[in-house]
Amino acid sequence: MTKIKAYVFDVYGTLFDVHSVSRACDELFPNQGIAISQTWRQKQIEYSFLRQLTGNYKDFFAVTKDSLRYAIQLHCGDYNDSQLKKLLEKYLTLNTFPEVIEVLDQLRESKLAVFSNGSHQMLDPLLKQAAIYNKFNHIISVDEIKQYKPTSESYQYCLNTLKVNKEEVLFMSSNGWDITGAKSFGFQTAWINRNKLPVEQLQLEPDAICNDLRGIID
Amino acid sequence: MTKIKAYVFDVYGTLFDVHSVSRACDELFPNQGIAISQTWRQKQIEYSFLRQLTGNYKDFFAVTKDSLRYAIQLHCGDYNDSQLKKLLEKYLTLNTFPEVIEVLDQLRESKLAVFSNGSHQMLDPLLKQAAIYNKFNHIISVDEIKQYKPTSESYQYCLNTLKVNKEEVLFMSSNGWDITGAKSFGFQTAWINRNKLPVEQLQLEPDAICNDLRGIID
Repeated sequence: MTKIKAYVFDVYGTLFDVHSVSRACDELFPNQGIAISQTWRQKQIEYSFLRQLTGNYKDFFAVTKDSLRYAIQLHCGDYNDSQLKKLLEKYLTLNTFPEVIEVLDQLRESKLAVFSNGSHQMLDPLLKQAAIYNKFNHIISVDEIKQYKPTSESYQYCLNTLKVNKEEVLFMSSNGWDITGAKSFGFQTAWINRNKLPVEQLQLEPDAICNDLRGIID
Repeated sequence: MTKIKAYVFDVYGTLFDVHSVSRACDELFPNQGIAISQTWRQKQIEYSFLRQLTGNYKDFFAVTKDSLRYAIQLHCGDYNDSQLKKLLEKYLTLNTFPEVIEVLDQLRESKLAVFSNGSHQMLDPLLKQAAIYNKFNHIISVDEIKQYKPTSESYQYCLNTLKVNKEEVLFMSSNGWDITGAKSFGFQTAWINRNKLPVEQLQLEPDAICNDLRGIID
């Protein structure tokens, strides 16, 4: 294993719990919070894939709004702009997973970066409110080149910013599809398998699998 | 609306019920049939997107096998090759939806085609056992160019085979993502919304929405 020179973290699902919106969903749409939250995330990912595949890029905050609209329509039918706005704002104050700050502090002598499909409009306030923005050397968004992960173009852009060799990058994500893309590109990968899911059957297995981010310290 | 010169049908979910495998899944994995069938289909689609996005094309029958492996692992854990083989064979004998033959017969004076992510290895036997293979002028598979739907390259290939103008094609699919791709490319589109789902929030709405294929005759 080549020595790691840059530790690169995915954001949604990896540093932050996207399902911390479910309580707010439940308050506005009683008993539908978990269902809305799950569809919201699933469609958010699907819409970013579809926009990439069809050449119709739109920034991730707009995609997040579109996917929320779909999720509410599916589970509840009607909604109004005020409800939509309230839930979207929650996406800027997601909870970090409990081990995040401790792990970032342990790695503080190394080059640290986040690399996300999120646009700076949503990433920067999220990282700042969690008091981790300043812990990173680079905040890298695909919005700078308008090519979503998991395209090789996106990981190449990340690599260009880091100024190290690709095999010196350890990329960490809870999202199987993101690990698949990063591994296919040539990064070293650690899959943060928070939900004890099977490995994706794509013949691109992660170099390491951990239950949470503490696992990468070992 | 321009006069339609070619009627093009998606296959999985549109002509054939992919969830007709759930009974066979249930026989081999009791009480998990519906869950396996749903994950199987979801991962089959996701894996085709991911292989396209990362430039790792593999034919759809192999993708169907990989996604079945994931689905069984997720819901049941272990499986053996004989179980895998039995379920995969079921994908070659899916049930057509009840109105399919009647609708194809009503359109028999027009140019008819199927256009699918499936490879001929899986498409041709499926269409033959349902006795509809000969009702089509063209059986078009993305495997001929190894570019999955919903890329514009795939719909362009379909169009090249049909030898009509793109706005003279009516493309029909039950899959929102497929309608999105076809609409983005420039086909006329009819979404066969068999499950009464909301329209995808991708600013590419279908030209028509029907409950089943009979709706396109009207």
